[in-house]
Amino acid sequence: MILGNDPVLLTPGPLTTSPATRQAMLRDWGSWDAAFNRITQSVCADLVDIVHGGQAYVCVPMQGSGTFAVEAALGSLVPADACVLVANNGAYCERMLRILERLGIAHVALPLAEDQPVSADMIEAAFAREARITHVGLVHLETSAGLLNPLDQIAAVCLRQGKRLIVDAMSSFGALPIDLRLGGIDALVSASGKCLEGVPGLGFVIVRRALLEASGGRARSLALDLYDQYQYMRETTRWRFTPPTHVVAALRAALDQFQAEGGQPARGARYEQHCAVLVREMRRLGFVPFLPPEHQAPAIVTFHAPRDPAWQFDAFYQAVRAEGYVLYPGKLTRGETFRVGCIGAIDVNEIHNVVAAIGRAIDTLGWRV
Amino acid sequence: MILGNDPVLLTPGPLTTSPATRQAMLRDWGSWDAAFNRITQSVCADLVDIVHGGQAYVCVPMQGSGTFAVEAALGSLVPADACVLVANNGAYCERMLRILERLGIAHVALPLAEDQPVSADMIEAAFAREARITHVGLVHLETSAGLLNPLDQIAAVCLRQGKRLIVDAMSSFGALPIDLRLGGIDALVSASGKCLEGVPGLGFVIVRRALLEASGGRARSLALDLYDQYQYMRETTRWRFTPPTHVVAALRAALDQFQAEGGQPARGARYEQHCAVLVREMRRLGFVPFLPPEHQAPAIVTFHAPRDPAWQFDAFYQAVRAEGYVLYPGKLTRGETFRVGCIGAIDVNEIHNVVAAIGRAIDTLGWRV
Repeated sequence: MILGNDPVLLTPGPLTTSPATRQAMLRDWGSWDAAFNRITQSVCADLVDIVHGGQAYVCVPMQGSGTFAVEAALGSLVPADACVLVANNGAYCERMLRILERLGIAHVALPLAEDQPVSADMIEAAFAREARITHVGLVHLETSAGLLNPLDQIAAVCLRQGKRLIVDAMSSFGALPIDLRLGGIDALVSASGKCLEGVPGLGFVIVRRALLEASGGRARSLALDLYDQYQYMRETTRWRFTPPTHVVAALRAALDQFQAEGGQPARGARYEQHCAVLVREMRRLGFVPFLPPEHQAPAIVTFHAPRDPAWQFDAFYQAVRAEGYVLYPGKLTRGETFRVGCIGAIDVNEIHNVVAAIGRAIDTLGWRV
Repeated sequence: MILGNDPVLLTPGPLTTSPATRQAMLRDWGSWDAAFNRITQSVCADLVDIVHGGQAYVCVPMQGSGTFAVEAALGSLVPADACVLVANNGAYCERMLRILERLGIAHVALPLAEDQPVSADMIEAAFAREARITHVGLVHLETSAGLLNPLDQIAAVCLRQGKRLIVDAMSSFGALPIDLRLGGIDALVSASGKCLEGVPGLGFVIVRRALLEASGGRARSLALDLYDQYQYMRETTRWRFTPPTHVVAALRAALDQFQAEGGQPARGARYEQHCAVLVREMRRLGFVPFLPPEHQAPAIVTFHAPRDPAWQFDAFYQAVRAEGYVLYPGKLTRGETFRVGCIGAIDVNEIHNVVAAIGRAIDTLGWRV
């Protein structure tokens, strides 16, 4: 590490951002000012473009973390008499169910193992079993394990069966291809501080314009009212309530870099390389990934903890941190695991380096993998 | 203006922050990392200290704008069978009523003119008229006009009458004296980007610990659940959902400067001076403040617009902006007004300068005041 530098974050957001992104926060912006509101508009337009939303979709930013935007989408778009199917293979699916529970929206959980993606057939079978299902809530990339759910196939089923689909694309947006032109997706939720490599503090919902415009008065919350946010912004160009101005400016800078890199295909390819190198080199150290390669998304990799009886995540975390890298604990309900992120403003050298750092840390701790 | 500098924001938040505050955002922090969570803890402890909360009160930070924290407080602390009295003398009071409406919480509005503070007697008379009132929602400093409501007297009435008091102290916290030791205040809400001179993106609720601990399971929202946020943070030291790490770090830096300046008394005195100079010098130009001096809080001053038939806020705004200052439009329901903030990381020279800039702008526009 360069002296004075901070450790590299190999975590799924907040993550390591580029100096240019952070330096965009060195200015103050007035929230009423046209210069700032042009930034917001250009950010929203670019976010719609990334997923090919065209004129049929609109991006509504929402203050807060990604979960705030997920709750805003569910609470503003789902009518009172709806029933939402949620395939549950991790903590973020579970969180969607808790939001629905809290908002008093009827829902059906489809329980799955944490290493088991949901299939389009399972979704279709659930529709057949439970005719009351009107909506599907899907987590595209379950960050708990790093699991990829087959979005395109599920969107096709929803389209065919006339069900609304709301997608939590928190850790996939910008990295994995998502194409709204295929139809089937009604709303897509993500946040500033994930694969777009902005700083955290802002979520957004890309939603079918016609659906949003028919949703006025439906929200269960004032702060998290997506329709109100959209309407006010459309009429005035301004945010309804104080925006996190510096976070928005940082996201603009991050999007400029995203475009300069080559957009989603290039961003996705970089992360794919990180993920492949990470898994290959960690295997060489003796670490076993939790997921088989075909279900592994290139955002974060869960590894089984060393079998050593002395294993303790905190000690491991501190030892690797002392080597310059911040890792993430596991978030699985069973088994001891830890996670290493592949995303952030880093190149593959950092992936080589973190594996070497993990190797040294394990040696220092005297553990066997 | 120094070439390349941005205009000074004389707006009630976002406002002008110091370079040191913005530079605190040049680092990335892991949200799981102990170094970051110590920052959160020290910020929360300092916020409780500013209002003398001692051990009886706890600070719960909330992602999003100040309104998110107001909704979190109302939605998490007010029971289903309660009825909230809101004295309504401006847009932020109105917003509190809209939140209560949206959450399905019974409420009583006490309508007042936008230049009329609510008195303790009026509150007491409302209690006498409507026995079902259990809570009071009060905006301490109504930013719409810049109006000060008499918090201490109202808190005393609430204490005597056994009513719960939830205070929106958005634009007063840190600038005006608030002393929780006097009793009567159950929860106090503010945000990072106001008189503490942090950047926007974070609200907080300082709440009586015993009240919060008795509020589990009450919240209408998952994202805005104050109790859950508190419990999770107490158990783990970490935020429940991704925190706006850079905003938190900036608030820590802003609080360091707040303390170095001499805390609330010094911050309040600086703003009082700004306000006095602003009103005096604007009067010299012929501008008349909307509020009488006894109701004017030192955060933002509303002025009547020039009577010139050519008056147009946008042209005025652009002309003053070209002189280096960003003002704010009026937010009153009647009459043409504009607002000038007194808060932010500026000294009194900027106040002298903005008045001179306004004078030049009016001349350039050829208007008569």
